[in-house]
Amino acid sequence: MDQTAFMIGFTVMSLASLAIYAKGSKAPPSRHHTLLHAAVPFIAATAYLAMAFGIGTLIEADGSATYLARYADWTFTTPILLSSLVLLAFHERGKTGEVGGYLTAIIVLDVLMVESGLISSLAEAPFVKWVWFLWSCVAFLGVLYVLWGPLRSMASERGGALGQAYGKNIVFLTVVWFLYPLIFLIGPEGLKIITDPASVWAILIMDIVAKVIYAFYAASNLDKALHEHERRS
Amino acid sequence: MDQTAFMIGFTVMSLASLAIYAKGSKAPPSRHHTLLHAAVPFIAATAYLAMAFGIGTLIEADGSATYLARYADWTFTTPILLSSLVLLAFHERGKTGEVGGYLTAIIVLDVLMVESGLISSLAEAPFVKWVWFLWSCVAFLGVLYVLWGPLRSMASERGGALGQAYGKNIVFLTVVWFLYPLIFLIGPEGLKIITDPASVWAILIMDIVAKVIYAFYAASNLDKALHEHERRS
Amino acid sequence: MDQTAFMIGFTVMSLASLAIYAKGSKAPPSRHHTLLHAAVPFIAATAYLAMAFGIGTLIEADGSATYLARYADWTFTTPILLSSLVLLAFHERGKTGEVGGYLTAIIVLDVLMVESGLISSLAEAPFVKWVWFLWSCVAFLGVLYVLWGPLRSMASERGGALGQAYGKNIVFLTVVWFLYPLIFLIGPEGLKIITDPASVWAILIMDIVAKVIYAFYAASNLDKALHEHERRS
Repeated sequence: MDQTAFMIGFTVMSLASLAIYAKGSKAPPSRHHTLLHAAVPFIAATAYLAMAFGIGTLIEADGSATYLARYADWTFTTPILLSSLVLLAFHERGKTGEVGGYLTAIIVLDVLMVESGLISSLAEAPFVKWVWFLWSCVAFLGVLYVLWGPLRSMASERGGALGQAYGKNIVFLTVVWFLYPLIFLIGPEGLKIITDPASVWAILIMDIVAKVIYAFYAASNLDKALHEHERRS
Repeated sequence: MDQTAFMIGFTVMSLASLAIYAKGSKAPPSRHHTLLHAAVPFIAATAYLAMAFGIGTLIEADGSATYLARYADWTFTTPILLSSLVLLAFHERGKTGEVGGYLTAIIVLDVLMVESGLISSLAEAPFVKWVWFLWSCVAFLGVLYVLWGPLRSMASERGGALGQAYGKNIVFLTVVWFLYPLIFLIGPEGLKIITDPASVWAILIMDIVAKVIYAFYAASNLDKALHEHERRS
Repeated sequence: MDQTAFMIGFTVMSLASLAIYAKGSKAPPSRHHTLLHAAVPFIAATAYLAMAFGIGTLIEADGSATYLARYADWTFTTPILLSSLVLLAFHERGKTGEVGGYLTAIIVLDVLMVESGLISSLAEAPFVKWVWFLWSCVAFLGVLYVLWGPLRSMASERGGALGQAYGKNIVFLTVVWFLYPLIFLIGPEGLKIITDPASVWAILIMDIVAKVIYAFYAASNLDKALHEHERRS
């Protein structure tokens, strides 16, 4: 049953990577967003392939599983998704150093969120598990602060259309990303309220929403905004 | 015998790093290419030093070896070599976001190519080994597509001299990089047609060609092109 | 006793991350330096939390400990500190490619310095330990060369005020960073002249100086220089 989910994940993610590239803009000023969004499901496809073969799957004493491939996937895909938002907020402005500073700060918070989640998943003693879950949530709050605070005001300064596209994208991303710690909390890595297969299928659907549906949604918001932006300027 | 190859690798790579820096341009607009090409053999030297001490060397049940230091080396050196090509294609144009998008996409494909190769090398079951070898080849095709497709047209738009330099560099790199999966295929990690020492010496020579000879060749093409480019503009 | 040091480290670093962000400039052209310097102690806080729980702590046969969390911390915090210096040297100039080339070169040297130190710490045979300690020092010399050579002349070209700020910052950083290999040398990972708790407390103090005090010192030098720089231009 997990196997089926993993093979579906691999198939959907591989095809989605090609589809996002094929359908996406291939001209400036938005073609780099196409590349970023196509790279994300290619990483996810590789992670699902690994999970299908049991590569990086750790079975703990109580029978619950930690899929290292998932955490490796998130370590690289979530920074890429955030990079696309940072670049949208700075659209065509922002010196190398400025953009680089914001990218570094949000990626540091994001990667520590993922790795703290991994430590929490692997911890056996409940106290250790919950301290690291909390620390992961602190880092997540940091990511949300950067997205909703400084970056949002920057995007708004770029004018109505771009600000709105940025706003729509972070609402979508924030809602979907909130589900991950929830599933972790109630799943086999946390309170064990839902079973491993239930959590695997739930995450499969969330991954498709967060990486594939989001890619098309974000590209459509961006394209509309750029159209508006150029018409006005 | 492996030991000798590793010490030769360490020595050649350390000296090459210094030589590439010493001989390379130290003024804009090409000095950053000098730095990128000098960093590559410094990483390789460290990897050869590790292999000389057996650090990160895994001996499998059938006696064949996987050198983790090699894969660690490739994980960082191949993205740097590709970065230099991306920067050449965008030469002095390209906003931070645009360049960053192309760098991210080609590096994601490249690193997944290397890590899939590592998984293939470590896999014991032939089916698993060949699925991952194939997936690594898919990622390699992705790298070649980005190099020969969008980046080549961008380099050509920058004008004759720069486009030609880019073209010469990717021909060289493509030919040499094709040899790595071939050696993997016939070597002890694959079909075991050639022995471990034969594969170690072959890769040593290929590494010197791909990292050292290529650095001098690419720098000479770039310098000629920049000379031409500035004369005309 | 180690436990107390680790909890102090966690507390100081978490609060310092907030304080550096709260007190730092939030407007261009220096707000990205604030973000970089606030990210550094957040990483360190996470590493101290891991050490407090014994996560990533390896006890060797002779009873001495290697804290992997430290090396993971340094792998990411030292490149961020160096990035801030590279961006200062290039202040508001430098094309994406140029800045990227310098960042790549100095980060490659820096990360190989950290990882060679880790290999040295884990090595049991004295010959292996000292070869890797030496190689780590070679990489450190490379980092210092880039900081004191090409980057310093670039910073000076940017004018008196910025050149002086850069100069002050690298003096501070160079002095503090020199202490780390010294403590390694005389500590339990090296000659075992000082004990593990002594080395833990010494590194705690050095970490606070190198990551927190330095952040405030560097920001104050930068702000003064930018004030001067804008007044004159």
